[in-house]
Amino acid sequence: MPYYIGDVIKDARKLTARTPEKFREGGIEIIIDNGVAEVDERRQEVILADGKALPYDILALGTGTEALRPGIPGEDREGVFLLRKLTDALTIKSYLEATGCRRAIVIGAGFIAMEACEAFVTRGIETEMIHRGKLPVARWDAELSSALLEEIKRRGVIFTSETTLTSIVEGAAYRLRLNTNRGPREADIILIATGVRPDTRLARAMGLTIGASGAIAVNFSQRTCRENVYAAGDCCESYHRVSRRWVNIPLGDIANKQGRVAGSNIGGTPRIFPGVVGAQSFRIFSWEAAAAGVTEREAATAGFHPISDVFWGNATAGSMPGPKKIGLKLIADRATGRLLGAQAVGEQRVVGRINTLAAALWAGLAIDELGYIDLAYSPPFSGAWDVIHLAAQNLLRKM
Amino acid sequence: MPYYIGDVIKDARKLTARTPEKFREGGIEIIIDNGVAEVDERRQEVILADGKALPYDILALGTGTEALRPGIPGEDREGVFLLRKLTDALTIKSYLEATGCRRAIVIGAGFIAMEACEAFVTRGIETEMIHRGKLPVARWDAELSSALLEEIKRRGVIFTSETTLTSIVEGAAYRLRLNTNRGPREADIILIATGVRPDTRLARAMGLTIGASGAIAVNFSQRTCRENVYAAGDCCESYHRVSRRWVNIPLGDIANKQGRVAGSNIGGTPRIFPGVVGAQSFRIFSWEAAAAGVTEREAATAGFHPISDVFWGNATAGSMPGPKKIGLKLIADRATGRLLGAQAVGEQRVVGRINTLAAALWAGLAIDELGYIDLAYSPPFSGAWDVIHLAAQNLLRKM
Repeated sequence: MPYYIGDVIKDARKLTARTPEKFREGGIEIIIDNGVAEVDERRQEVILADGKALPYDILALGTGTEALRPGIPGEDREGVFLLRKLTDALTIKSYLEATGCRRAIVIGAGFIAMEACEAFVTRGIETEMIHRGKLPVARWDAELSSALLEEIKRRGVIFTSETTLTSIVEGAAYRLRLNTNRGPREADIILIATGVRPDTRLARAMGLTIGASGAIAVNFSQRTCRENVYAAGDCCESYHRVSRRWVNIPLGDIANKQGRVAGSNIGGTPRIFPGVVGAQSFRIFSWEAAAAGVTEREAATAGFHPISDVFWGNATAGSMPGPKKIGLKLIADRATGRLLGAQAVGEQRVVGRINTLAAALWAGLAIDELGYIDLAYSPPFSGAWDVIHLAAQNLLRKM
Repeated sequence: MPYYIGDVIKDARKLTARTPEKFREGGIEIIIDNGVAEVDERRQEVILADGKALPYDILALGTGTEALRPGIPGEDREGVFLLRKLTDALTIKSYLEATGCRRAIVIGAGFIAMEACEAFVTRGIETEMIHRGKLPVARWDAELSSALLEEIKRRGVIFTSETTLTSIVEGAAYRLRLNTNRGPREADIILIATGVRPDTRLARAMGLTIGASGAIAVNFSQRTCRENVYAAGDCCESYHRVSRRWVNIPLGDIANKQGRVAGSNIGGTPRIFPGVVGAQSFRIFSWEAAAAGVTEREAATAGFHPISDVFWGNATAGSMPGPKKIGLKLIADRATGRLLGAQAVGEQRVVGRINTLAAALWAGLAIDELGYIDLAYSPPFSGAWDVIHLAAQNLLRKM
C-alpha cells in the first residue's frame, strides 16, 4: 500500500479538486492534516504526529521549501501573509475580498514578489514594494532589472529600495504599519516574499546527506545517500549542466521532472534526471523576463573566466510596427568560448529566445556558433540577424 | 576599385534609399541598369551589356533566384505580377492604388503566396488562392497545414485546390480571367507565387560546378570551384547540418550570413559558414507557422529511419486565459534517437519553440533529451511540461 502524506488542495480549481480521487484510483492512501513526526529507518516506518506508524519499503521525500521571514516583531500579525502554497494564495484572496483592502506592501523583490505586485495592482490596490537591495530580481543584470523597475513604476507601483525592517504594528490610516529605517509605511495587507529555503528538517533528522547548497543530496536517479530513500523537487539538489555543480533551484517544472524520475525508478523503470541549465522566466505586466545558465559570479565560482555584454536590439524586424525593444545579456567563458549564461527582458518574444539559448547551454555550444546559428527568420518574429546573433557577435568582438 | 553590379532600390524606404550612398562611402562603384553579358575568366574581366569591361581579381556572385512561372498563354499580361524583388512589391502597390482593385487571385500556396493573401485581404480585396495541390505549404504536415487553411478561410480567402491552369485572358466582370480545369476565375490582379529556382545562368556560362540541388556549389568559405570566384545567397548551396547534404534554401537570413562570410574571406579575415538546419517561419493572420530540420521524405532520402508524431498541446499553462492551441510535429531517427525535424503551427509562441528545436538540431540532440530539457517555465509562457517535452515523450513512446 503506497501512502501520500501531505497537503492536498480540495477546494481550489477543478484540476486540483480531482487530485485526491486520482490518488485513490491509483491505489494510494492519502493522509492529510496529520504531519510526519519522525522516520524510524531501522523499522522502516513513518511515525505520524498522532503516533500512527506506516510501514514502507521505499520512502520518497518531497518536503519542498520553507518560506524565509524577516524575523521582526509583528510578522505573524493578522493581515501579514506568506505565499508558498496554493492554500496561501486562496487565503490571501479571501482576505482581500472580505476586508476591502486599499493598500498593499510587498516585502522582497524577487520574481514571486513581482508577480504578487502585478496581482495587487490589477485588483486596483495601491502597492508598495519594499526591498533591501537597490534593484529588483538580483539574477538579472542591473541594466535589465532597471527596465523592469521602470515598468512596475509606470504601472503605479511604489518601489522603496535599500530598506531594513524593524517591526510590524497596528496602523492608523490602514490596518498595519511596517516600521523601517526609512520611516513607517502603512497598508491593509503585507505580503512577505523574501524567498525560500529547502525544507530539510525531516531529512536532517534522518541523518541524510545534505549538499553544500543546503538541500538534500541526491544522485541522477533521485536517490539520497540511503538505498531506499528518494527525494524530488524543491527540497533536493539538481545537477547544473553549465557550472557542473549540484545546486538547489526551487521551480515547479524541475520538481515535476524529478518527481517523475524518482517515481519511475521506484517503480522499476530506470530513468535519469539529466540536470538543469537554470532556465526560468516570469511576466511582469506587459514585460517578459527570462534567464538561463549561470551569472558571472556563479561562473567565476565554478572556475570559468566570464566575460559578458548587454545588447539592446529588436524583437521583430525594424520594419514591423509595435513595441520591439529587447535587452539580452550573454555571458561566455574567455578560455573556451563556451556560452555560460543568458538573461533577457522585453515586451515581446523574450522567453522563446532564452529557451533557444537554454538549448544551446544544454548542448554546450560556443558563443561563435551562436553568431551564425540558423533560426526561423521572418519579419514579424525577428530581424534577418536575430538579437541572438547580434549579441553573440558583439560579445565575440570583446573577447 | 570594387564594383557592385545589380539592382539598387532608390525609392523604397529610408534604409534602402541610403544603400547607394553607403556603397560609395565604402569606395564601391555602383553599376545599375546595365546587366552582365559575360565573364571573361582568362582576362579576369566582367563584360557588361553595353560592352564595357570591368577588371577583377576576385569575383563574387550573388545572382539570387528566378521566379518560376506556370508557362501558360497570357501570363505576361498587364495586371499579372511576380513577387521576387522589392521593386515588384512597389509596382504591385502602385497598381493597386491606381486601379482600385476589387478581387485578387494568388497562384501558388507556399509561404510567400500565404503572406500575399494576407496583404490583399488586409486591403479589403476579395482573394482567391489557386493551388495545384490539396493543401497549402507542403513542408508542413497535413494536420498542421489544414489548421492554417482553416485560418485563411476564416479570414475570407477562397482556397481552390487541385487546379491546373490553362491561360490568362481578358476578363468580363474583372480585368483578367484565369482559365483552369475547374472553370474560369476572374480578378483585377493575378499574382504568380509558384516558387523560385537559383539563378545560375551566369555561373553555368562560366562553367562553374552546379550542385545536385541546381544551385552553385560552394565550400564552407563560400568559394566556388574557382580559386577567385565566390558565391553567396539564394543562388548557391548551403550545408545542411541534419541531412549532411548540400541544399539550396533561398531565405534572406541565410543569404545575409553567407554574404558576410564571403566578404570576410575575400577581405582576408577567415570565416566559415557553419551551415543550416532548415529553420523558417511565416505569419498568416494571427497564426504563426515555423519549421526546422528535415521532413520525413528528406530524412529517408538522407538514409535516416524517420518516425514522427503530431502533438497538440497548449502554448501557455492551462490556467491562463486566451488562445493557446499549438500543434507540434517532431521527426526523429529510429536508429539513433536523434531529432531530425520539427514543424509547428498555432496562435502563440510557435517560433520560439521551433528556434529552441533549431538549436537542438544544430547541436544534434536526441529525442529523449528533449523530453527532459530545462526550459524557462512560467504559466504565461508554457505549462510545467512544455509542449516540446510532451511531444518528445509521445514520440519516444512510439519508438
